[in-house]
Amino acid sequence: MKCNVVAVGTELLLGQIVDTNSSYIGEQLAAVGIGSHLQLKVGDNLARVVAAIRLALEDADAVIICGGLGPTHDDLTRDALAEIMGVPLEHNDHIAQLITNLFATRNRYMAPNNLNQAQVPRGATIIEQTRGTAPGLMCPVGNKVMYAMPGVPHEMYDMMSRAVLPDLLERSGEASVIKSLVLRTWGESESALNERLDPIIDELETLGNPTLAFLASGWEGIKVRLTVKAATDTEADALLSTWEHKVRALTDDLVFGTNTDTMESVVLKLLEQRGWTLGIAESVTGGLVGGRITSIPGASRTFRGGIISYTSEVKFDVLGVDRGPVVSEQAAIQMAVGAQRTLNASVGLALTGVAGPDEQDGQPVGTLCVGIAFPDGRTFSSISQLPGQRDQMRQFSVINALSFLRKLLLAEPR
Amino acid sequence: MKCNVVAVGTELLLGQIVDTNSSYIGEQLAAVGIGSHLQLKVGDNLARVVAAIRLALEDADAVIICGGLGPTHDDLTRDALAEIMGVPLEHNDHIAQLITNLFATRNRYMAPNNLNQAQVPRGATIIEQTRGTAPGLMCPVGNKVMYAMPGVPHEMYDMMSRAVLPDLLERSGEASVIKSLVLRTWGESESALNERLDPIIDELETLGNPTLAFLASGWEGIKVRLTVKAATDTEADALLSTWEHKVRALTDDLVFGTNTDTMESVVLKLLEQRGWTLGIAESVTGGLVGGRITSIPGASRTFRGGIISYTSEVKFDVLGVDRGPVVSEQAAIQMAVGAQRTLNASVGLALTGVAGPDEQDGQPVGTLCVGIAFPDGRTFSSISQLPGQRDQMRQFSVINALSFLRKLLLAEPR
Repeated sequence: MKCNVVAVGTELLLGQIVDTNSSYIGEQLAAVGIGSHLQLKVGDNLARVVAAIRLALEDADAVIICGGLGPTHDDLTRDALAEIMGVPLEHNDHIAQLITNLFATRNRYMAPNNLNQAQVPRGATIIEQTRGTAPGLMCPVGNKVMYAMPGVPHEMYDMMSRAVLPDLLERSGEASVIKSLVLRTWGESESALNERLDPIIDELETLGNPTLAFLASGWEGIKVRLTVKAATDTEADALLSTWEHKVRALTDDLVFGTNTDTMESVVLKLLEQRGWTLGIAESVTGGLVGGRITSIPGASRTFRGGIISYTSEVKFDVLGVDRGPVVSEQAAIQMAVGAQRTLNASVGLALTGVAGPDEQDGQPVGTLCVGIAFPDGRTFSSISQLPGQRDQMRQFSVINALSFLRKLLLAEPR
Repeated sequence: MKCNVVAVGTELLLGQIVDTNSSYIGEQLAAVGIGSHLQLKVGDNLARVVAAIRLALEDADAVIICGGLGPTHDDLTRDALAEIMGVPLEHNDHIAQLITNLFATRNRYMAPNNLNQAQVPRGATIIEQTRGTAPGLMCPVGNKVMYAMPGVPHEMYDMMSRAVLPDLLERSGEASVIKSLVLRTWGESESALNERLDPIIDELETLGNPTLAFLASGWEGIKVRLTVKAATDTEADALLSTWEHKVRALTDDLVFGTNTDTMESVVLKLLEQRGWTLGIAESVTGGLVGGRITSIPGASRTFRGGIISYTSEVKFDVLGVDRGPVVSEQAAIQMAVGAQRTLNASVGLALTGVAGPDEQDGQPVGTLCVGIAFPDGRTFSSISQLPGQRDQMRQFSVINALSFLRKLLLAEPR
């Protein structure tokens, strides 16, 4: 079973928004053992949308089309589906009513063009909305099928799991299982990781299963992904765990988690296991560490809060840092102690550095100083030179600081 | 002149990383009047990479290939290019030396596999690196051309502007100019925006130039993009400004900026014009507002810092909020006043709300309270119900709060 993906929208080709939908769809397909070998982006042009969908259908059993179902004049996916199916569009009273009711219950004025979304190609099955207005569509074409979903991510996610994946699995019959395991690493470059794993990479290439890949992912670290194929879930899990051990044996000092673990979720867990709370002080990252930590539901059990001490005066007046250079290990430690005290937290974590464009306190762009204060009064600091421009340097600062804290926490009794 | 794009990497199809490179490339091409009608993602499989590049070449004069130039075993772009050109790969001593020197000057150990990057298809022109190790390649094939660049974004950006775009423009001869103008809006839905613009949309569709599109972009707001084609820069600018005025006439109350303006950059400018500084208090957003503001170089001229008062105790003890419910307009105002005082800022901006998964203080998920304190002691507050899951609700909270502050600032004398 193969399913290709077409993302529709001139804004995608012009790069005004990034196509994250086909990435999500590809991930969902792989997880259920359906291959996706081609993913296309095409603009809001009827002839080109039709051509792209036909192309994607050529070497696949199904195509998922994302976007172009909205109410506006440049939403053309419904017309493209009807043309490929060779059928007319028909007004669907049921859908029209649902859309009208949705606006009514939200006390929102309904622009009449919203009813364009009630146009359905004859013979298509409707995927009803639970969140928005545009319904999804399942369109048979010969012995293949086209699925159309809205481009709004949370509407698409819902239809994907509720309707599209189940239908695909039913059609695929006995789908072989594909499973992936991602080992999350930090501390080595991609090529150094690759070399560490050379001994087993040769073996993997002879076997062809599992496959192994490296994914450099900014503040997510470098991911090492193992993907196995097997007849059953059980076999897939067994094969994965065998190879996980082989990979870990060569990289264990770098692995901080698996799959959806992040450096922040791992650090929160380590703190919680020790009954410790966290308070942070951010300068160079300006709130990014707090933003990452609080993206995790339940962070409030461990995370008390932070001081964004962006200007020096806030470092001096709020955190009690000695007046003087503020990009130094000493300043970072004083910030950490200040955050610990001000926020009444067990542990204080602080970041100060130079994101650029200009150097500061005689320190070059890319300098990061991290300070950490522990409940018993011990303090720790580190200084590093991080690569990249402003945004990249700030991202690396977040994971670098959390990684430093993680290693110190691992050395503490639970 | 048409140039298609191929992004190489199984991780892209499996959705383990999102393809932002082809979006960037599409944006750069459009800006210089080169059309891109097809953008493909393909996995790390030699036969499929070759097929995808051939497909992309079919209806274009050039193809840009991104990724697969790294040192590891799954980097196959060099082999694919050689196969399509029908030439062998040759070891390039100059590149090998550059790579070796780079590691030496950084005092980093060089894994031998890095020298794979010195393999060059015979007849290809090299695009030297200024940041990383893998060189880019310009590969003639018949009367067309293939450009290969690394998948590491900042390395690709550099090669794109330094080598690929100039070469494309030279080949395209008199490229007609394509220019876009983006009006950044906040406060209306996409369909309501569309209806406001109905009068001119019909006119635009008859003319065919400029084109108009809507892009819903999370905390970037909803973008209204005008794209014009013209023979010269001057004509393009004139046409754009004519239509900018027509669009603004119907939407001006919603437009907060243009092109690269963001709500945070606009708010910082308004504060700076009034000689005011900003201090923030974040609960529901946990640092995201600070992270956005400090992504702007020079923010320190205006932004003093913030208090991430994630737990109630920090609101009470650090910001002086009255004990009691912390998701209310009153609490938001007290947080703003507390931030203003603690951070010695002219203006205090505070956010408290419920991102979920659970409700809080009897307020449903999606509730956002914003508080603002002005230098003369006046305070303001708002309460809204925002849509979406945790991440989306937090994003909307950031732009919602900054938009509220923007409107209040516009009413203040400079």
